[in-house]
Amino acid sequence: MPSLPDLLPTHSSAVAFARGQHVRFLEELKALLRIPSISALPMYAGDVRRAAEFLVAELSRIGMEHVRLIESTGHPLVYADWLHASGQPVCLTYGHYDVQPPDPLDEWQSSPFEPVERNGNIYARGAVDDKGQMYMHLKALESLFHAHQGTLPVNVRIILEGEEETGGEAIAQFLRDHPEEVEADFALVSDTELFAPSLPTLCVGLRGMIYTEIEVCGARTDLHSGVYGGSAPNPLIALSQIIAALKDAEGRILIPGIYDRVTAPDAAELASWKNLPFDEDVYRNTEVGAKELVGEPGYSVLERTWARPSLDVHGITGGFTGAGAKTVIPAKATAKISLRLAPEMQPQETFEQLKKRVERVRPRGVEVEVRLIHAGDPVVVQTGNRYIRAAQRALRAVFDKEVVFVRSGGSIPIVADFERYLKIPTVMMGFGLPDDNLHAPNEKFCIANFHLGIESIILFLEGVAQGEEPGREAPTG
Amino acid sequence: MPSLPDLLPTHSSAVAFARGQHVRFLEELKALLRIPSISALPMYAGDVRRAAEFLVAELSRIGMEHVRLIESTGHPLVYADWLHASGQPVCLTYGHYDVQPPDPLDEWQSSPFEPVERNGNIYARGAVDDKGQMYMHLKALESLFHAHQGTLPVNVRIILEGEEETGGEAIAQFLRDHPEEVEADFALVSDTELFAPSLPTLCVGLRGMIYTEIEVCGARTDLHSGVYGGSAPNPLIALSQIIAALKDAEGRILIPGIYDRVTAPDAAELASWKNLPFDEDVYRNTEVGAKELVGEPGYSVLERTWARPSLDVHGITGGFTGAGAKTVIPAKATAKISLRLAPEMQPQETFEQLKKRVERVRPRGVEVEVRLIHAGDPVVVQTGNRYIRAAQRALRAVFDKEVVFVRSGGSIPIVADFERYLKIPTVMMGFGLPDDNLHAPNEKFCIANFHLGIESIILFLEGVAQGEEPGREAPTG
Repeated sequence: MPSLPDLLPTHSSAVAFARGQHVRFLEELKALLRIPSISALPMYAGDVRRAAEFLVAELSRIGMEHVRLIESTGHPLVYADWLHASGQPVCLTYGHYDVQPPDPLDEWQSSPFEPVERNGNIYARGAVDDKGQMYMHLKALESLFHAHQGTLPVNVRIILEGEEETGGEAIAQFLRDHPEEVEADFALVSDTELFAPSLPTLCVGLRGMIYTEIEVCGARTDLHSGVYGGSAPNPLIALSQIIAALKDAEGRILIPGIYDRVTAPDAAELASWKNLPFDEDVYRNTEVGAKELVGEPGYSVLERTWARPSLDVHGITGGFTGAGAKTVIPAKATAKISLRLAPEMQPQETFEQLKKRVERVRPRGVEVEVRLIHAGDPVVVQTGNRYIRAAQRALRAVFDKEVVFVRSGGSIPIVADFERYLKIPTVMMGFGLPDDNLHAPNEKFCIANFHLGIESIILFLEGVAQGEEPGREAPTG
Repeated sequence: MPSLPDLLPTHSSAVAFARGQHVRFLEELKALLRIPSISALPMYAGDVRRAAEFLVAELSRIGMEHVRLIESTGHPLVYADWLHASGQPVCLTYGHYDVQPPDPLDEWQSSPFEPVERNGNIYARGAVDDKGQMYMHLKALESLFHAHQGTLPVNVRIILEGEEETGGEAIAQFLRDHPEEVEADFALVSDTELFAPSLPTLCVGLRGMIYTEIEVCGARTDLHSGVYGGSAPNPLIALSQIIAALKDAEGRILIPGIYDRVTAPDAAELASWKNLPFDEDVYRNTEVGAKELVGEPGYSVLERTWARPSLDVHGITGGFTGAGAKTVIPAKATAKISLRLAPEMQPQETFEQLKKRVERVRPRGVEVEVRLIHAGDPVVVQTGNRYIRAAQRALRAVFDKEVVFVRSGGSIPIVADFERYLKIPTVMMGFGLPDDNLHAPNEKFCIANFHLGIESIILFLEGVAQGEEPGREAPTG
């Protein structure tokens, strides 16, 4: 438990400034949300760049320095810094300005790229993942500049990427090749959520992932299923048979070796999960909306989604999927399949295990190729460092409640990259909610959380500058 | 064996006329092929109608009477007749002017709706299925009108449909509700193929079919696979598990009862199949182009595709199938699945068996709906009737070779409907070739066969008018 008294929001003139700007901050965010920066779809490449340029302009306006686009083979990075807080640590803040594709479009209640306020939320693709959360950083910095006479209490570098939703190649390469240009003491990432509304939450664990494509080829060309049904191999059936051999009806993954490295969280962490306000029935009903939950027998939902690997199929192509009936045996079929990795699992090893399994269960008559599209390491953050403690103080002060530590089943590969290339810990301080519809229709962000997030980040950076009392300093990095 | 001498092509002035019109006939066909009359895709409905109007104009021009569009809830039927051949039988000729969707477009060597001549073939969607073959009927009738001073040797009704590729609801309903308007003694359908190039062929058996959709629903909305992977049901995985439970790795269908009604063809028919010029290796290499054929163990390719049921998956929707990586657990997924039925199998019963099986193997956590999209009865035609014998004589005369009787693995539901509603037999006299790429990219029709088909139909109708010698008359209907 940190021994410093919390810096209260009412004591911060930066917070006071931010509270006076609620309307403008939200209108600016809406302008950013209107840009359909879908990194996965090549036809939106121009919009992705437009979003980057929007951020460059804004960073320059609020007082950041060395603001620039860093070009890559994919979408550009946005970089800025302010490094005049002598003797203070360097904070590297990260966010992504690209978004997931919005389909299925017909399930949106309002247009995904025309933000709408409803019931205290703002609805738009990217509202919470991650434009809205990334924009909190900018607005916290603006407020700090305003309250501190054009300075910041700590040193700040900011790096924003435009291809997080498609693998983040550009930023990973930049960190690998130019770690000195983003040298820092800790990172701040807001791409996670509160465990429950009004419950201040720090995320200290992320699953890793591999995203793959399995392509199955049968005949040379598409064939008529009347004429060739009964003799030609059907790649869609073969693919189904392969998928059925990857996961059993109970939810157990059938890939040999997949569970070998998986260890249980320690007893204290498991015990703290049991104390979280989590009701499986409510989760099933309100979040998932399915008749029944599925998954590996013998583990709780939190264990299954935070600390165990999982396998999902995201889409299958091949043949005819339009309206009506086409009687074709497709020449080939492809499935997009990903695995989430528990701590200690290694992406490349997992991929080899998957590949071996697919080759072993390949049905007669077809050829199969398994491709790795991208990969990310799992992460576990130690809770003992001063930055986590400062975050804890700031959140407690803003939300007036004790902070909970959780993990996330999702993957934020950048956090593993910060650890690997910069040797720094990351504070994952996010303000989304479990029902925010990430990656789904009707994505939203609670407007109150947008503003509380800005206040929390202001207090966090002011708190980091304030330091800790001697003797309580924990090792960093 | 028919005892009448063959009427030779050189004795027919209608054939002589047709031979003088090769260039014009083909150019007219090209104009028809340019109309993208894709019945499955709603946005092409106007083009489907345009094709119907093209045929109305052409039927009027050549001398047919009562030419009209018959409107339906779907695409219109085209009807015409000429009924002044007193004492002669009535021939009902049938064809369809709609075509399959052309996708995948990038595999076409030339545009599917800009017919191109290459290597003695005409390439276009619908070239052989069925515009080119249907147009042979019109050109045979035109030639007969020309050679017989504005009359025909037999009575002819012609009916053409525009939704054969999507289930043929309109024509089935018309036959059911107004059988008297198409009363006839026999039907002529050219929607089949020669067993081998230059080998005159009559098709006397067709498999039936059911075309279904299986829809699997899991969560209420699409979910993020990081956050929910390990707890939310995945409909694409559930669908794969269902499909894998419908067919084993060997190609055996796993639906209980599915083989109960299936009987082997009689010994004579099986023996005649063994004499057909069929080489499994050539078929595998040149037609299918796969490393290995698949299918029910213990049966030859011809038995598997002509006389045994088969099951194929045509397309799977749900989730994300665009470029790049989207980590979504789809709320629902749908598969288009069809079964081909051997003679004696009953579509409705087969559908119930499928449904029961799907419900039995449904994985936990998802709900499943099985929908019947359309169905067609299997058909076996008796070879002893006078129309089949007249067809045999005409083909032998044109091709100068003995005719072979085959079956087809495909389904032509109209032939079953003619049998059910009009109580008439159908002569299936088609001129496609096994490598014509029906329902696939680069569909083609051999131009020589287009012209030989016209000659065969002319001689067939002149031969029917000529009759058979007394005592050899076989019962019809």
